[in-house]
Amino acid sequence: MKIVTCVAPVNIAVIKYWGKRDENLILPINDSISASLSTDIMCAKTTIMASPLLKENKFWLNGREQTFDSPRFSNCIKAIRARCDETLPQFNWKISICSENNFPTAAGLASSAAGYACLVHALAQLYEIKGEISDIARQGSGSACRSIYGGWVQWHKGDLPTGADSIATQIAPADHWPEMRIIVLVVNDCRKKYSSTSGMKTTTETSTLVKFRAESVVNQRAKAMKKAIEDKDYESFAEITMKDSNQMHAICLDTFPPCVYMNDTSHAIVNLVHSYNEYKKGQKVAYTFDAGPNACIYLLQSEVEQFISVVNHVFPKPADIDAVEYYRGLTLPNKQLDKKIVDDLNLTPHDTGVLKYIIYTKVGGGPQVLGDPSEHLLQDNGLPKQ
Amino acid sequence: MKIVTCVAPVNIAVIKYWGKRDENLILPINDSISASLSTDIMCAKTTIMASPLLKENKFWLNGREQTFDSPRFSNCIKAIRARCDETLPQFNWKISICSENNFPTAAGLASSAAGYACLVHALAQLYEIKGEISDIARQGSGSACRSIYGGWVQWHKGDLPTGADSIATQIAPADHWPEMRIIVLVVNDCRKKYSSTSGMKTTTETSTLVKFRAESVVNQRAKAMKKAIEDKDYESFAEITMKDSNQMHAICLDTFPPCVYMNDTSHAIVNLVHSYNEYKKGQKVAYTFDAGPNACIYLLQSEVEQFISVVNHVFPKPADIDAVEYYRGLTLPNKQLDKKIVDDLNLTPHDTGVLKYIIYTKVGGGPQVLGDPSEHLLQDNGLPKQ
Repeated sequence: MKIVTCVAPVNIAVIKYWGKRDENLILPINDSISASLSTDIMCAKTTIMASPLLKENKFWLNGREQTFDSPRFSNCIKAIRARCDETLPQFNWKISICSENNFPTAAGLASSAAGYACLVHALAQLYEIKGEISDIARQGSGSACRSIYGGWVQWHKGDLPTGADSIATQIAPADHWPEMRIIVLVVNDCRKKYSSTSGMKTTTETSTLVKFRAESVVNQRAKAMKKAIEDKDYESFAEITMKDSNQMHAICLDTFPPCVYMNDTSHAIVNLVHSYNEYKKGQKVAYTFDAGPNACIYLLQSEVEQFISVVNHVFPKPADIDAVEYYRGLTLPNKQLDKKIVDDLNLTPHDTGVLKYIIYTKVGGGPQVLGDPSEHLLQDNGLPKQ
Repeated sequence: MKIVTCVAPVNIAVIKYWGKRDENLILPINDSISASLSTDIMCAKTTIMASPLLKENKFWLNGREQTFDSPRFSNCIKAIRARCDETLPQFNWKISICSENNFPTAAGLASSAAGYACLVHALAQLYEIKGEISDIARQGSGSACRSIYGGWVQWHKGDLPTGADSIATQIAPADHWPEMRIIVLVVNDCRKKYSSTSGMKTTTETSTLVKFRAESVVNQRAKAMKKAIEDKDYESFAEITMKDSNQMHAICLDTFPPCVYMNDTSHAIVNLVHSYNEYKKGQKVAYTFDAGPNACIYLLQSEVEQFISVVNHVFPKPADIDAVEYYRGLTLPNKQLDKKIVDDLNLTPHDTGVLKYIIYTKVGGGPQVLGDPSEHLLQDNGLPKQ
């Protein structure tokens, strides 16, 4: 019997992935860049057990048993096993997989990226695979390949039709830019979501702008972004981050029928950030949005206290939600509202409840193996602990 | 003394104008196409008096006196006078101008297009100008050049640096497609507006997609749109109209900082139209949005009854607004709600008050001179009647 438990990070792209050139291999039409967020705050966790005593392959996700045969899931398992030394005993044993996210999947916070990175990393441990595995994680969920590394990560679109060169590499480790923080403003949203998979597919088929973006805009932007990260040049980083988020959503709107992920609250956050930056006479705070209404704010630690006090003023916490529920992650500095900035920005508070909660986190490392047996999500019989 | 009173139509673009290549002459970066809407429902009305008894030039807009020296206003007057026979007595007389819109200017319904078309048409009557004047109206407000003609109108971007060839021409007169109707869903909106002038300027300066749109997308689309109008091919017309509206707003979102004119209600209307069309298995209804949240719906008369019954279900009229206030323009057919379509579309009604009111209108003629002296907005002394 062999058992392994891993955690893997969520990643938030600052140069966006939108559009595939190969649906099956999940090959993107352009490079993308992200930061992996601390697994202490948000992570996927996966335990895999291989044992000669197991009668069949089983998989549980967030407490519910799943089919073992979904194409992306089984593609990852096949691809990992193809790199395994077939003489290892566990190669011939059945496996039990149990996976959980420690953050709400409903919030649209890239849970599949963390989940597939964690699955593939744990499988690689189980089958004793060395070397590149981001190309395998990519086949589970495109952006999962970026969660295979910590810190700042670039997913190279690659040129080969096999996808072998469509891999992630680390631009810089988690401790490269220690002042960087991320505030996730989770927007209370009741709109029907389009999956990013189907959205991207419709975009690739119908947008007249997406190809131009991929071929003529992103390369230069990705280079500038890499340099901004390497140089820890926050102002350039912030401007490119916001522009690329806006352009991804522009491309979504240029789709037919359009895919709209941002809502009025998202745009109110965008306006707040631009007003704040105008007031501060520089790009001090940067928003980015994925395929949902939630804002991810990248900012330096020195800016957190004042910015969060303005956010708390403009988007007041509902009285009936506990602060511990509402403020998650790292401890936010608690500052009296700066009345001058609020007056100068002419900011009118929204109704309470516009934000569901706030997560405060930072850039973190890549997937890790948890050695302590108490961390396993599976019992010795291969069934989930709960 | 000479006095002339004119009305001129609002126009709603189906191929959008967004971006100038010359800010002063108001030369666009691409062609655009619109319909002029019936002046019976919405119009600008202008009276101009020239008299040797007037001591100074005066201008009133919607009851308020305005400066005579604003650049665009005085550019139009100078340009018209430059084409006038200087031996005409009125060439040397002072003028009084009084202008009104019969629809709310706050609703963001292209009032400046109708207003400048009306001003320039009335000035042309006053100074007895024959021939092309759309190039002059363009210098007041770009899209005003399209309101110089009735029916279906194309504004050619032109190539000359003088702008002499950046003029409007009629694709087809108002009676060419007699079944065409327009429903304007005026959205209750309290968001700060960006003027389209400053929005366009920022777009031209910052969007990495706008040039590609202007140079590589619009020409082909404008040709297809012209053909769809000529052939009265509603399905093609509808698809291009929606795609081009979406692309204009995509370009706005690709601006830095982004200009966002559509809101959650606008997008709910977009979703409703796509659901409706999917149900009907064809493009039966088409939305288009200008620089504001209001939806202009182009549809054939045969579709109005069912579509408006669905709109009334999804966006209920507030009980405290009179139907006469709420439904403006042509008389809307009154149909019992088709429960099947509502159930099949799975449409949840929004709160009341999401729409402010609804205008129902059709394609109409160009500017007209009103001969009846009771129509004049000025008294004999050159002061406004009210």
